[in-house]
Amino acid sequence: MVIPCPVENKIEAGTDRLAEAAVRVGLNVRHGQQVIITAPLEAVPLVRKITKHAYKAGASLVTTFYADDEATLARFSNAAEDTFDTAATWFADGMAAGFREGAARLAITGGNPALLSGQNPDLVSRASRAASVANRPALELITSFAVNWNIVAAATPAWASLVFPGVPEPIAVSRLWDAIFSASRINGEDPVADWAVHNDQLHRRADYLNKRRFAALHFAGPGTDLTVGLAEGHLWAGGSSKAKNGILCNPNIPTEEVFTTPHRLQVEGYVRSTKPLSYQGTLIEDIEVRFADGRIVEAHSTKGESVLMRVLDTDEGSRRLGEVALVPHSSPISQSGLLFQNTLFDENAASHIALGQAYSECMTEEGGKTTEALAARGANSSLIHIDWMIGSGEISVTGLDAAGGTVPLMRAGEWVTAV
Amino acid sequence: MVIPCPVENKIEAGTDRLAEAAVRVGLNVRHGQQVIITAPLEAVPLVRKITKHAYKAGASLVTTFYADDEATLARFSNAAEDTFDTAATWFADGMAAGFREGAARLAITGGNPALLSGQNPDLVSRASRAASVANRPALELITSFAVNWNIVAAATPAWASLVFPGVPEPIAVSRLWDAIFSASRINGEDPVADWAVHNDQLHRRADYLNKRRFAALHFAGPGTDLTVGLAEGHLWAGGSSKAKNGILCNPNIPTEEVFTTPHRLQVEGYVRSTKPLSYQGTLIEDIEVRFADGRIVEAHSTKGESVLMRVLDTDEGSRRLGEVALVPHSSPISQSGLLFQNTLFDENAASHIALGQAYSECMTEEGGKTTEALAARGANSSLIHIDWMIGSGEISVTGLDAAGGTVPLMRAGEWVTAV
Repeated sequence: MVIPCPVENKIEAGTDRLAEAAVRVGLNVRHGQQVIITAPLEAVPLVRKITKHAYKAGASLVTTFYADDEATLARFSNAAEDTFDTAATWFADGMAAGFREGAARLAITGGNPALLSGQNPDLVSRASRAASVANRPALELITSFAVNWNIVAAATPAWASLVFPGVPEPIAVSRLWDAIFSASRINGEDPVADWAVHNDQLHRRADYLNKRRFAALHFAGPGTDLTVGLAEGHLWAGGSSKAKNGILCNPNIPTEEVFTTPHRLQVEGYVRSTKPLSYQGTLIEDIEVRFADGRIVEAHSTKGESVLMRVLDTDEGSRRLGEVALVPHSSPISQSGLLFQNTLFDENAASHIALGQAYSECMTEEGGKTTEALAARGANSSLIHIDWMIGSGEISVTGLDAAGGTVPLMRAGEWVTAV
Repeated sequence: MVIPCPVENKIEAGTDRLAEAAVRVGLNVRHGQQVIITAPLEAVPLVRKITKHAYKAGASLVTTFYADDEATLARFSNAAEDTFDTAATWFADGMAAGFREGAARLAITGGNPALLSGQNPDLVSRASRAASVANRPALELITSFAVNWNIVAAATPAWASLVFPGVPEPIAVSRLWDAIFSASRINGEDPVADWAVHNDQLHRRADYLNKRRFAALHFAGPGTDLTVGLAEGHLWAGGSSKAKNGILCNPNIPTEEVFTTPHRLQVEGYVRSTKPLSYQGTLIEDIEVRFADGRIVEAHSTKGESVLMRVLDTDEGSRRLGEVALVPHSSPISQSGLLFQNTLFDENAASHIALGQAYSECMTEEGGKTTEALAARGANSSLIHIDWMIGSGEISVTGLDAAGGTVPLMRAGEWVTAV
């Protein structure tokens, strides 16, 4: 007699439900559509389940590209320093061609967030920059929703050990899966129906904000007095989005935010981070910055300050905002109390702002969506897009209209009843 | 005290030597060159060793694409039948762009040769054809040696179980690794030096044959009386080759053959296979075919005949020859007595012919290398290239010159002393 292991069974069942949600809620795969998956090697079991559900949903071909943290480390340990500005442009361009031909995009996140923390920061930064430049055309197709896309997470040993330090690895992995399943809203009887309800709520909030067309948001709380001007023709988004190929997809699982485009020249005041920012393996804590004319003119952090400074100096747009997002303090991820060190989760634990690139999706069509036209209306442009948390149970958010009127949006971290 | 496991240590050490040989003998990676690897998922440990050696040798970036047999099967079990003509053209084109930008190419073979043997042959054939069409531009860059490339093998459980049926899996895998190490000539004190000696011998034979410029080869033995005309301006090759980027590489590890281009219109007589042909999981045994004017006009086999017929009907060129190769019966792979069901090994166990596509590398530059110019000189063109064994200890090979003179090349399966 074989006694089934309850933990393994729970993970088996959960990953199967997550896989189905990724395919049916996340991508909403169309019959005959190709699917491109990227994943850490440790996510093979989840990828196989996603692949099965994708084919069942009508996918014509599922192509998965695995990333291996060990291979990345082998480069830093063995490669010549003069080779670190190289990126696989030919591959990124191939993916972009796949999107142009209509392939859906599914990214599985879960690699070790601290992988490169011990490596030469100059080499890390050069390799990362080269990869960003190479990936830009493909990323632009994704952020502009040329096709349906989705990101979900897989619990890997390295990530789990970081989230649950000191906990034996298999238990940490099991706990991280639990946290992923719960945050991803797949534990109910019918996850597809649950996501429909959740999407409705997010759409209602985005619709309200789009109707009000605020000129700016004001954030107030301990260490924070920040006015974020919104771009001309900004659009609020949240939950599912219709991609340009007509497919309604949920780009992030989980997601708890409604978000839009700040005006890159109209951010004023100061703000303090409310959660640590995990950037390429370094925790940057207690960030305090001051904005003038949309630009960060002063920045400090109690930990990781040199990494923060390096990030801010990436390019012209890296000291300006590309996104502002509202998340209630009562969000399930916030209530879990976990620091995932992974943006897909941490950004859904609190209201946040992002340095760098704006989403053209969060702008109206008026005036067109060329880089120049978007910049003229205030949308920022940069190689980076880094979210950091400024929300908490002590934060108020107020909408400011063009005439100077104010509308309370959040108080003590929660949506006011009217919204 | 921990007692190291001798089998694991042996595989560790062997795969490290194989990895170094693949990088230094196979690819001969140049400083600053990118490397593109394809591999079965089960080959992760070998890939990691190759990646390390590639970076040590100066590679700027190693990008690995893993194939997962389970994902392939998931398609056949779940996808709609109307989607099987789809291929990842965007990805194949991306790889081709990588080669054009100078990336080296390393393929690790070792997936389950019988993977698709239980699947609907019509779907297998449609998927395979679509993939062949998509891969053609990339493959053409490889077969024409635009860049340095190499194929090596990794022992995987599914493959090992097929080569050693009835043997417990871990023992079968260990035996297959032994067979790979031995065939790949990496067991000596200095594999790089051993490969230099081996390459010299293969080059000497190819040089001799190139000097003689035979018009045809005659194969005689049990069930075989075959005259294979050689293409005008055919070139014999064997062992290392200089790629167009100037790098001397060993495209196959192992390799024991010297080979050239037959004339697609000038093959006459009949021939019997001397070893089973493993094609997409089906063993085709005791093939007997008759050629007239270069074309197979009659074909039989005692096993797998319907698969053989399907292969022959792939396209215009699939009934004509694209390669003829001479391998002595005393080759180490032949002497191992194993049927690997993998062309990289089996084709080096006996003299063989290949149906389908010719190698433009095995043609002189005279008249140019456009498809039309090559065809005019007799080089065949097809979506397929399938090698099958016609050599044994009972086969004689005789060179026929244009004037009708004859020169014995092999007797009883061995090179005659003069060669």
